[in-house]
Amino acid sequence: MKKYVELTRSEAEALYERVKIEYEEYKSLGLSLDLSRGKPNSGQLDIADGLLRMPIDKEIFYSDSGFDYRNYGLVDGIPEAKKLFGELYGIAPENIIVGGNSSLQLMYDALARAMMFGTCDSERPWCREEGLKWICVAPGYDRHFRITEEMGFELLTVRMTESGPNMDEVERLVRDPKVKGIWCVPKYSNPTGNTYSDETVRRLAAMECAAPDFRIMWDNAYAVHSFTEDDDRLADIFAYAREYGNENRILYFASTSKVTLPGSGVAIVAASDENLAEIKRHMGTQTIGFDKINQIRHVAFFKNADNVRRHMLFLGAAIKEKFDITLSYLDELRGTDIAEWTVPRGGYFISLDITLGTATSVYSKMKEAGVTLTQVGATYPYGKDPEDKNLRLAPTYPSNKDLRMACEILVCAIKLAALEAILDKHS
Amino acid sequence: MKKYVELTRSEAEALYERVKIEYEEYKSLGLSLDLSRGKPNSGQLDIADGLLRMPIDKEIFYSDSGFDYRNYGLVDGIPEAKKLFGELYGIAPENIIVGGNSSLQLMYDALARAMMFGTCDSERPWCREEGLKWICVAPGYDRHFRITEEMGFELLTVRMTESGPNMDEVERLVRDPKVKGIWCVPKYSNPTGNTYSDETVRRLAAMECAAPDFRIMWDNAYAVHSFTEDDDRLADIFAYAREYGNENRILYFASTSKVTLPGSGVAIVAASDENLAEIKRHMGTQTIGFDKINQIRHVAFFKNADNVRRHMLFLGAAIKEKFDITLSYLDELRGTDIAEWTVPRGGYFISLDITLGTATSVYSKMKEAGVTLTQVGATYPYGKDPEDKNLRLAPTYPSNKDLRMACEILVCAIKLAALEAILDKHS
Repeated sequence: MKKYVELTRSEAEALYERVKIEYEEYKSLGLSLDLSRGKPNSGQLDIADGLLRMPIDKEIFYSDSGFDYRNYGLVDGIPEAKKLFGELYGIAPENIIVGGNSSLQLMYDALARAMMFGTCDSERPWCREEGLKWICVAPGYDRHFRITEEMGFELLTVRMTESGPNMDEVERLVRDPKVKGIWCVPKYSNPTGNTYSDETVRRLAAMECAAPDFRIMWDNAYAVHSFTEDDDRLADIFAYAREYGNENRILYFASTSKVTLPGSGVAIVAASDENLAEIKRHMGTQTIGFDKINQIRHVAFFKNADNVRRHMLFLGAAIKEKFDITLSYLDELRGTDIAEWTVPRGGYFISLDITLGTATSVYSKMKEAGVTLTQVGATYPYGKDPEDKNLRLAPTYPSNKDLRMACEILVCAIKLAALEAILDKHS
Repeated sequence: MKKYVELTRSEAEALYERVKIEYEEYKSLGLSLDLSRGKPNSGQLDIADGLLRMPIDKEIFYSDSGFDYRNYGLVDGIPEAKKLFGELYGIAPENIIVGGNSSLQLMYDALARAMMFGTCDSERPWCREEGLKWICVAPGYDRHFRITEEMGFELLTVRMTESGPNMDEVERLVRDPKVKGIWCVPKYSNPTGNTYSDETVRRLAAMECAAPDFRIMWDNAYAVHSFTEDDDRLADIFAYAREYGNENRILYFASTSKVTLPGSGVAIVAASDENLAEIKRHMGTQTIGFDKINQIRHVAFFKNADNVRRHMLFLGAAIKEKFDITLSYLDELRGTDIAEWTVPRGGYFISLDITLGTATSVYSKMKEAGVTLTQVGATYPYGKDPEDKNLRLAPTYPSNKDLRMACEILVCAIKLAALEAILDKHS
């Protein structure tokens, strides 16, 4: 298809009339569809049903040491779960704390502790310092940004590139001692779907930070979320950090939220010995322990890391189907130069850039036609996309039928918004 | 039996020799027993086994509104659980947030939010104020004290009386605007086992606090933990607080940790509309939601509040057996005037006062004989009992046989310590 900006005025006018009619037809259908939610649908959840149907024998609640997992204790999690996740993520089990159902909570709590008490490398609690800043890679995950915004950090935006954050920019920013950390989703990133290159991971581990207590919030949320066996390879940031003597810099998070059940999975935080000692000390004041029954339930269900990987291939195939549908519709825009999008090999999202900077217009048109998209700007700090370009597509939740209809309308709305911009029409 | 202080020197010497021999015999047994842990034993946990064995039909994971509880969402908990706990605790369901497995975590998080952001009645975050103070009722719960100590509060001790905290003292202290709150376990209190009188509850709700953002941490941990049907009655603090216009003052906590399973129960926080709005706003940044499967599991298991109460009668009978054993041994000290103890009608602990102020000596003697007691001072702020008197006994965990042996040695150690003090002997 021809580039829209190269259309003659009359070609553009004619196309506009056709697309406008098409759009009005969609609108008249009175639909109510949702492409905004990065959550699995019920069919995908059924793949983990065995977890809930598993026969509960009392023996599984006793560890080798005779500890009754139904009771209080073990604030850092059960050894069997540490072993499973250690194997799965390639981390020493003793450097893992197995928590509750939410890795976001573990991240928030890690920063809350830094605010109230400081880290093991801090001179004082962060809340006693003025003008704190935090690096946000954008497009990125809105819930990350919200945590640091709420805690009073100034958010600094760094562009996501194909190989991860723009590292020249990151290395420049961390020379400021007020810059305390960075949010990273290093694999199948939210929403761009790309994986940080080895070089990026190495530079993050090696860079010289002016703040001695700088922290990389390494949210490996999609560590095992490849669609096929052709999995992206993410470098071991702990290995690099050890090499450069910066091991305390890394706080590593992951969960089974998008492996088993989003509401009832198991989350982990992994860190250096020094960090872990600090975390456990405060965590032991916060709680007597997380839900060990759910931890042993996961261990009994999966048994080992290979079975998790097998499980993820089933899940990946189910999710790939949704992505393929979405991408097949977007393909219709190829050559028009009015949109660009990522083609992830794993994860949960497609990042869609509206080339002419009319993302808000597309969002509104979709809303009017009954299709909810993720709020424009959600992928940027403070919810503001400076170029009004980025839309995050979440294809997993709708049924195939709904997804097809939503994508059809999306393509139409993108065309309409582009033609309006080109013809300088205001809807 | 005769009061020890009224023994003649030769009577005391003779008794000392007998008790000393008895104690050395216990020591020679090489025992390893534990009276320190306020946790149920496996037999008590078995009473809730139905929770884990419950058939898991997919229908239970769907709410009336069609919400799939396996998925993300509902940060404030599922409506069915709000209804159950509302009925059980006599609180409007809409004023309840149903959380994860730990009420301690909900308390810590409430104070962490106050530190970082302030409450809905604060002018600034608490961490921006200097010299904060907190009231601790003692003897009380060490984990409460530890939270406020760690967050930098100066801990002020108020004596527990039979009707609750010494309210004259509390009312005097809250005239200081630096005093931000008080820890309360209002029913079958830890470790004294008494329940606050109506008058105490009313005065707590009514008192004039200089700090506009004063908070009562109302940890109703033993709300339904009577041993028999003859349950203590605790006044409704929300009703009083509404009467006096101080509803924001109350943060109410409870959990099923000692109803179903300590590691895998369900905890709640209840509060005024204004407090709840503030809590939900920050909680929604911290997590996408707690474990809703475990919430619906509890609802499906209990169905209604009456069934929880029935369940607690089974559990209460099992726990009463342990208390009766312990008390029958302590009875041997009646009349000696060397020890005083509480006789709770519910809860988890017996509070034992060593009249002559030799609790540390008793603790050490027990340790030497292979019996672990709760650390002396644990029931006081900063872990320091100013009178060296109080010991917290936790009878639930040991087997009956172990409990009998531990109590036998305890009685012997109390006698020995008292006689040493009277005879001015140093062991």
